[in-house]
Amino acid sequence: MTTVYVDNNATTRVAPEVLDEMLPYFSEYYGNPSSVHAFGGNVAKKIREAREKTAALVGASPEEIIFTSCGTESDNAAVRSALKSAPEKKHIITSAVEHPAVLNLCTALEKEGYRVTYVPVDTSGNFDFDYFTQSLSDDTALVTVMWANNETGVVFPVKDIAEKAAEKGIPFHTDAVQAVGKIPVDVRELPVNMLSLSGHKIHAPKGVGALYVKKGTRFHPFVVGGHQESGRRGGTENVASIIGLGKASELAVDHLPRVDTDVRHMRDYLENTLLETVSFSSINGNRERRLPNTVSIGFDAIEGESILMHIDYAGICASSGSACTSGSLEPSHVLRAMEVPFKSAHGSIRFSLSVYNTMEEMKYIAETLPPIIRKLRMMSPFWDRCNDKA
Amino acid sequence: MTTVYVDNNATTRVAPEVLDEMLPYFSEYYGNPSSVHAFGGNVAKKIREAREKTAALVGASPEEIIFTSCGTESDNAAVRSALKSAPEKKHIITSAVEHPAVLNLCTALEKEGYRVTYVPVDTSGNFDFDYFTQSLSDDTALVTVMWANNETGVVFPVKDIAEKAAEKGIPFHTDAVQAVGKIPVDVRELPVNMLSLSGHKIHAPKGVGALYVKKGTRFHPFVVGGHQESGRRGGTENVASIIGLGKASELAVDHLPRVDTDVRHMRDYLENTLLETVSFSSINGNRERRLPNTVSIGFDAIEGESILMHIDYAGICASSGSACTSGSLEPSHVLRAMEVPFKSAHGSIRFSLSVYNTMEEMKYIAETLPPIIRKLRMMSPFWDRCNDKA
Repeated sequence: MTTVYVDNNATTRVAPEVLDEMLPYFSEYYGNPSSVHAFGGNVAKKIREAREKTAALVGASPEEIIFTSCGTESDNAAVRSALKSAPEKKHIITSAVEHPAVLNLCTALEKEGYRVTYVPVDTSGNFDFDYFTQSLSDDTALVTVMWANNETGVVFPVKDIAEKAAEKGIPFHTDAVQAVGKIPVDVRELPVNMLSLSGHKIHAPKGVGALYVKKGTRFHPFVVGGHQESGRRGGTENVASIIGLGKASELAVDHLPRVDTDVRHMRDYLENTLLETVSFSSINGNRERRLPNTVSIGFDAIEGESILMHIDYAGICASSGSACTSGSLEPSHVLRAMEVPFKSAHGSIRFSLSVYNTMEEMKYIAETLPPIIRKLRMMSPFWDRCNDKA
Repeated sequence: MTTVYVDNNATTRVAPEVLDEMLPYFSEYYGNPSSVHAFGGNVAKKIREAREKTAALVGASPEEIIFTSCGTESDNAAVRSALKSAPEKKHIITSAVEHPAVLNLCTALEKEGYRVTYVPVDTSGNFDFDYFTQSLSDDTALVTVMWANNETGVVFPVKDIAEKAAEKGIPFHTDAVQAVGKIPVDVRELPVNMLSLSGHKIHAPKGVGALYVKKGTRFHPFVVGGHQESGRRGGTENVASIIGLGKASELAVDHLPRVDTDVRHMRDYLENTLLETVSFSSINGNRERRLPNTVSIGFDAIEGESILMHIDYAGICASSGSACTSGSLEPSHVLRAMEVPFKSAHGSIRFSLSVYNTMEEMKYIAETLPPIIRKLRMMSPFWDRCNDKA
């Protein structure tokens, strides 16, 4: 059985070109880039090249890029640095639908004495901009709002948010982990101070990320140690993975037009076909302002986890929300924040595509899923009631 | 020209067996271990196996191991967690010769209001145990002392230190990054609460480490995010590298007897030959209580960096201290803390061996280095004076 992998918002395949670039740096050119000898020095040169490529992906200068171990570390580093830079301020603004990297950190910060505003979203997952502007205060140390949502793909008005924060002189950080590589992300187009990205969402390996820190933005290191990353992140560089992230950044620039055309086309086909063939199904989130690769679709009266298990037998890998929260039977915090009705929130599935998917795979999903939904509904105690209401 | 790599305390070659284990997890089994589908679930199983192997390396239980991104992160996590666990206590005890991961963090903590005792060492690099015991106070939140020094290889009396801290009810953390894989490290033999280790010092890739946290020791996550690592370290797991660390841990157990025999024999041969053939040379640090793979040797009246550059032309990769501080012309903080005389501290070189070195390589170094030392001394303005004193 072949695997149809449509869980690319959870993680991606390392691109063959990326792995090829990485391979020599494990057992052949394994020197420490901090070393004086040429064996290490040559590695340092490759890291410089990777930094240039990752910077180019988001329109930054190389010296504005700090390599980290993952998107979560980037988020932690950004938030902690902003708070340290304004120790007298005790208020943070974020959204109710952030990734756990920001959300759980904010919860932890509440215990440390911070006041956190979780800007709500509407039933289409749109950011409540008025609520946001009313939350800004002289005590606000940081605004941290994601660029695009991992579950629904809904894209937030980060430019407007960044400009409003800048007006008030408040630093703005965005978790762009899901946006980078899927839609244009250019730090020159908005006043963003810090931006997180992750390698394994763009066909680099897991375990590497980056944090963009705008020139002139104060930065306090999160992982304190040696002089690496210009003293902004201690620890011997994750050489092979950083080189991989560089290559993946280059590929992401090349792939971007195809994500907006081919991938969008496949996503739309899958989404429309499922909506047509499966009654009582609905899309979660604003269909217009959305990542071109993501669809979150709710099927009334059944359990997302059951759907996942059944399609898994058919070789289809998807998610019932973010992989980080899969495993729980509660609807995700994102769908709850959107007040998606219980009956469809519980039966929601996320498909997230990449350029490595094919139209044949979409057709396979579109054929395989409807009979599974019908079967599960036949067994569901909620299905009759749901049907009556129609 | 072949490369003779004797800089294994800086970083190591990824063992071929390690790379083989890692390879399928980049582009083939690339699922997210948090996913519900079997494609991700199978990866989770491999991570469990890796955790068992890394635990076994240090005598821990698998649930006591948290995978991190590097030794530096492990150190940061341990120190920050201990301080959070005792917020009313404002004193930290460490040594003057710690790795920058601990030392620079302690400096940063001084700015946050902590009082830090840097226990001195004697001229042989031995830990001043009396000074240490006198420093313990009711206000001490943490004792963090390295197991073995990265530059000199001097091994500290961690068991005595741990027991003294335990007597006073103070948590003990040890940076065992340089000890693990070179000498027996077993957490069951001493009351250690937390222990840091790093993958790339034991033939796993750069960018992965682990923190042992003894069952019953309170732990506050450093990188806050998803539920990974039982909620103790957020961020998608660095799958391939964790699997690599597991395999490298297994290898390290196998290699340990050879480090104590073959590697020690090669190190002793190199050290004794150099001492015999080069006048005004001396070993930095206690030669008895020392890692079997490390020698720090000082050559009077010349510059370590010049030696490094000359042997680099001959294909020999060594270090003038820790790679993290190479590049500066100041003697390292370790040699300064040992009050190594200026004339030999400046001309100090560290050779650090692994099981992948050969006796032929040692002979090559022993033949290549003395003429370089003579040549450099001929050009040195300090050499005549030094010679006069003899």
